[in-house]
Amino acid sequence: MASTAYASHFPLQNIPFGIASSEKHPEPQAVTRLGDSVLFLASLAAHGLFSDVPDLPPGVFSRDVLNEFAALGRPLCQAVRLAIQELVRSRGTTGLPDDALEHVSAVTMHLPVHVGDFADFSCSLEHVKNAGRIIIHDERPPPAFFHLPIVYQGRASSVVVSGTPIERPMGQFRDTKTDGAADVVFGPSRAVDYELEFAAVVGKPLEMRKRLTAAEADDHIFGFVVLNDWSARDIQAFEMIPLGPANGKNLGTTISPWIVTLDALEPHRLPPPPRVVPVPRHLEDPDNGAYAVRMQVEVVTGSDVTVTGTSEVQSLYWTVRQMVAHIVSAGSALRTGDLLATGTVSGPGTGTHGCLLEATRGGAAPIRLVSGESRTYLEDGDVVRMTAVAGGPSSGVGWGDCLGQLLPARPYA
Amino acid sequence: MASTAYASHFPLQNIPFGIASSEKHPEPQAVTRLGDSVLFLASLAAHGLFSDVPDLPPGVFSRDVLNEFAALGRPLCQAVRLAIQELVRSRGTTGLPDDALEHVSAVTMHLPVHVGDFADFSCSLEHVKNAGRIIIHDERPPPAFFHLPIVYQGRASSVVVSGTPIERPMGQFRDTKTDGAADVVFGPSRAVDYELEFAAVVGKPLEMRKRLTAAEADDHIFGFVVLNDWSARDIQAFEMIPLGPANGKNLGTTISPWIVTLDALEPHRLPPPPRVVPVPRHLEDPDNGAYAVRMQVEVVTGSDVTVTGTSEVQSLYWTVRQMVAHIVSAGSALRTGDLLATGTVSGPGTGTHGCLLEATRGGAAPIRLVSGESRTYLEDGDVVRMTAVAGGPSSGVGWGDCLGQLLPARPYA
Repeated sequence: MASTAYASHFPLQNIPFGIASSEKHPEPQAVTRLGDSVLFLASLAAHGLFSDVPDLPPGVFSRDVLNEFAALGRPLCQAVRLAIQELVRSRGTTGLPDDALEHVSAVTMHLPVHVGDFADFSCSLEHVKNAGRIIIHDERPPPAFFHLPIVYQGRASSVVVSGTPIERPMGQFRDTKTDGAADVVFGPSRAVDYELEFAAVVGKPLEMRKRLTAAEADDHIFGFVVLNDWSARDIQAFEMIPLGPANGKNLGTTISPWIVTLDALEPHRLPPPPRVVPVPRHLEDPDNGAYAVRMQVEVVTGSDVTVTGTSEVQSLYWTVRQMVAHIVSAGSALRTGDLLATGTVSGPGTGTHGCLLEATRGGAAPIRLVSGESRTYLEDGDVVRMTAVAGGPSSGVGWGDCLGQLLPARPYA
Repeated sequence: MASTAYASHFPLQNIPFGIASSEKHPEPQAVTRLGDSVLFLASLAAHGLFSDVPDLPPGVFSRDVLNEFAALGRPLCQAVRLAIQELVRSRGTTGLPDDALEHVSAVTMHLPVHVGDFADFSCSLEHVKNAGRIIIHDERPPPAFFHLPIVYQGRASSVVVSGTPIERPMGQFRDTKTDGAADVVFGPSRAVDYELEFAAVVGKPLEMRKRLTAAEADDHIFGFVVLNDWSARDIQAFEMIPLGPANGKNLGTTISPWIVTLDALEPHRLPPPPRVVPVPRHLEDPDNGAYAVRMQVEVVTGSDVTVTGTSEVQSLYWTVRQMVAHIVSAGSALRTGDLLATGTVSGPGTGTHGCLLEATRGGAAPIRLVSGESRTYLEDGDVVRMTAVAGGPSSGVGWGDCLGQLLPARPYA
């Protein structure tokens, strides 16, 4: 499948971070991206181009994950990003050292961080209303929804980088017959879905039992990724009472290779939606804590691309700062590389749903693809591609893509 | 609080592994225990005492966690354990090099592994029946209970070693008035509980999307710990619909410092309880997959020790092998250091409950402590001590203790 051109996502105002390797740079290492070029930071550092950045540990860009860099905290990451911007402004990309620069088509992107804990929240009021209406015929949000950002822990070892194939999982679920009776069967899931999510990556860590309010949370956020929380709805529905989803979510969780920094998003802050009930002080987000980020998900079948949903991060009831403040409020630590995902980002109307469960009303209303085929859930071979742009199409702050292809189930031998 | 003497847990037939430091051995490193002595394995290795163990990587006992050692797989861990047993048999402890041996009172034990993912299961039929009866007045187990071992993911960064204080968490929960009305409040939890659990530690890793049956699971188990899944019942009850527990469990999860190997438990295998419904082939545990392990939990107040529950691992409906086979069945990886806990181990009668929720019937029947005080849930200052012994009191295979003291909540500044 041909990759989309995303040069417009990566002008000078973005400068995201990732991990890449190539023939010329065989060891996975820290990179940024500028248009269709990938810049290898250790090569820039070797030419002395970060000599004005104080306290930059030697070798920090040569690690195979960004954790050591991200742990240095926001001021240092800011300084590195500004130094890159200054360098390109003064020299142009043609003035950069040859050995630091490669075309995006020549590099392989890797998982950008070692993930400590992966917390997946449920911040979209529209998503919980839609899902409730479809699954239990009750659109009232869960009892705690307006009081705190509801969350469960995912399996960190299932987080993979964009491009990694995802396999239809085997599992147990109810097989409902036409007469309404249901057997529990074990086999390939018949209801593999995507979930369009936005996620924060933790930078500076926080020890257990330290207090942190939403107003202070930005100090611990390194940046943001687009995340596909692949879900096997049938496995999930059967297993999740009462302890929540597990194997229905463990088939894989795809993240974009590019981590867009908090600083790149700074111009795109917005106030979050008004509160329905007051929140405790540690959850108060005092200024514009939401982000104007438009997300999109496509189902790609062969050369046909069908946009199946677009939605906006600023519609979420809870902000990322509130997610961070909530998860630490009972004593949890934050470790560098921890992921905090928003849950499915959905809007109120047709075309704004972040998952097929909602878009097809639980299978009751299959969607039509550009190819003429229809879908209730994903078919083997389908590619799901997600992307996001902050603050409008010309902002220059985007994520490129977060994609994966669904492979057929492999039975047990 | 004086430590219990556990010399009888650690004769030659045990040889568990842990991580310790001391004045003489200031860097945390791999150890085993023999009676009241702690043996530093790097010191034994320096004297050439493992020269007959093939393929032992140099320095493997000098790491501050056991992961590298555990990842080597069962045959190598077996060989090391046998070499230690042979050494002590032939020389006696008095014949061991002085610099390798310290009294247990001179050492500090550390978290023995870096925990990747922490999966907490719900394997006890009695626990789910008791909890259901108390919470929703329905003792029928959850719909999936007999089909698969129900599980949720905990926060790996909350796992701490025995002795680490646990702080009463702040959180949101329902404050029910005498007239039945309930406000949602934010404050210190009023219902901090313990959960008596048994947990497997993963040794040899397994990549994502590899097939593994219960019959093959032992190859990936390094050993077992006693685990206290501290729980704030009020926070948990409010947050857990529909995605399961999160902050109600994140205050801390205590594990014993000693990992007892699969080999030490081998003589204490038993058949698991009979199946209520047939299981898919990958969950079939072909031979004695249960362990005869008696667990005990005590509440210690000052110098008073009250045994609040004793229960047996062999009563669990699901075996550890089945837990492993289930969690990987949808594509999950196993990483060295992953924890898979059984959930609360409870029996059917008075005195056999692994948590206060059950022992006090949700607070309806407070228990009496030796001191004369009563408890519904834990009070600030209470120490919870858990222990376990395999195969009867004279088996020589025990875990020492797994303990923590509950500290008062610290309000936000």
